[in-house]
Amino acid sequence: MPRAVLVNGVPAESISVHDRGLQYGDGLFETIAVKNGVPLLWERHLDRLRLGAQRLAMALPEDDRLATEAQSLCRGIDRAVLKFLITRGVSERGYRPPITAEPLRVLYLSDWPIQKETDGNVNVRLCRTRLAANPLLAGIKHLNRLEQVLARAEWGDDHMEGLMLDVDGNVVAGTACNVFAVINGILCTPDLSHAGVAGVMRGLVLERAAALGIRCQITTVTLENLERAGEIFLTSSLIGVLPVTRLEAWDYKVGNIAQTLHNDLAAAGFLA
Amino acid sequence: MPRAVLVNGVPAESISVHDRGLQYGDGLFETIAVKNGVPLLWERHLDRLRLGAQRLAMALPEDDRLATEAQSLCRGIDRAVLKFLITRGVSERGYRPPITAEPLRVLYLSDWPIQKETDGNVNVRLCRTRLAANPLLAGIKHLNRLEQVLARAEWGDDHMEGLMLDVDGNVVAGTACNVFAVINGILCTPDLSHAGVAGVMRGLVLERAAALGIRCQITTVTLENLERAGEIFLTSSLIGVLPVTRLEAWDYKVGNIAQTLHNDLAAAGFLA
Repeated sequence: MPRAVLVNGVPAESISVHDRGLQYGDGLFETIAVKNGVPLLWERHLDRLRLGAQRLAMALPEDDRLATEAQSLCRGIDRAVLKFLITRGVSERGYRPPITAEPLRVLYLSDWPIQKETDGNVNVRLCRTRLAANPLLAGIKHLNRLEQVLARAEWGDDHMEGLMLDVDGNVVAGTACNVFAVINGILCTPDLSHAGVAGVMRGLVLERAAALGIRCQITTVTLENLERAGEIFLTSSLIGVLPVTRLEAWDYKVGNIAQTLHNDLAAAGFLA
Repeated sequence: MPRAVLVNGVPAESISVHDRGLQYGDGLFETIAVKNGVPLLWERHLDRLRLGAQRLAMALPEDDRLATEAQSLCRGIDRAVLKFLITRGVSERGYRPPITAEPLRVLYLSDWPIQKETDGNVNVRLCRTRLAANPLLAGIKHLNRLEQVLARAEWGDDHMEGLMLDVDGNVVAGTACNVFAVINGILCTPDLSHAGVAGVMRGLVLERAAALGIRCQITTVTLENLERAGEIFLTSSLIGVLPVTRLEAWDYKVGNIAQTLHNDLAAAGFLA
């Protein structure tokens, strides 16, 4: 369990039964790596939060409240995970969003997850659970996550992650990360305009790749593309850039592009 | 706000910040009409709950706990709304469902909603927000309800309900009810195998229609079908059978089939 929780700025362990986060998943969240007391890529996480709030027409707490509370939780912490969630707040029964609700904010500071010893093997599976297409909800990190829960329930500890396909059978993302593949020499990552979460690390990787002169493309990615890919890697704020060595029956080598990007991001201090 | 709330059987107003209902919408709910101290159609609501729990591979509290608590809340109550929600319970951070979590149950008893004076006019709109297709989540009443929230945010008090279409443009349901239309003399209601909630009242209406010799069909319903429909009505546990008199620019008369079904259900004591 988290080592510290702040509910609307106060150490607490409970929220209202009337909160719309519980009732409808009516809210947003962010998961952030903390290193040497600092929540990494904070502004990028806030940017995505703001995009989500705009899509949901939801009020947000003031930025400096979130920042102040995050700083107070992270102070003196070597390495940890900071998660926060913001909901539309409390309302009467019914889907209609209230006009005046006060958003709820909950910040959680958790231990850094213990990495299993993998000998460099990163074994990924294909999930049977598909991601539905909804452009309104795609890209943002909202609290309606049953598809990810059902996908993650498909396996135990035998795989590092599972890749999810959309209803057309194209690759979208891992349950809790984004995916990149080098296809015909071009670094590709799935288009997320209809499904998936546009990761902060994904955005950063695309920018750094472009800056490093690596040709990259946001596009449709098929399983056939992955079968023939020169390298595949996963990205998230917690895992950084993680090369995949096996996807179902297909094997991959750790590639130059993943290593180059990992080294670049590590040197810039973006990885925990 | 509700007049009474029970959290795991105890009067309370809060739940854990670690509950997966809040984190991921990882749970189910039911909204039930209460009349003369009795939650109506209780067994049908429990059947849908069980179907949802099976789909989500989620444990449920024992039936008699829910029933006992519902009875205790409803005793002596003339007319009210009983809502309950069940979540997978508390877990560590991460989508992976815990093996041993204790499901959370929250029961809410609320006043019966005040009906606006409509002079028999039931004005319905078409929502811009579409329903994504996911067979795994279709039909059940889970806690991922952002699509309904966004749809309900499209209007204020000027319409009674809004109809939602799927990504292909076919009619699915209202934001908080199901829809029936008489098309070429046949009572039709949309197929919900890919999106929407299969209402308890919808199921009952289909059964009663069949018993009354009304030809009925679960099928694809288009907007063109609705434009030419002889009658349209909405159903839910709270509204019962509610004839639509206007959908956007199209007008409808209150039809015989809606009246026949309403009278039949009322006589059987199924309506609040």
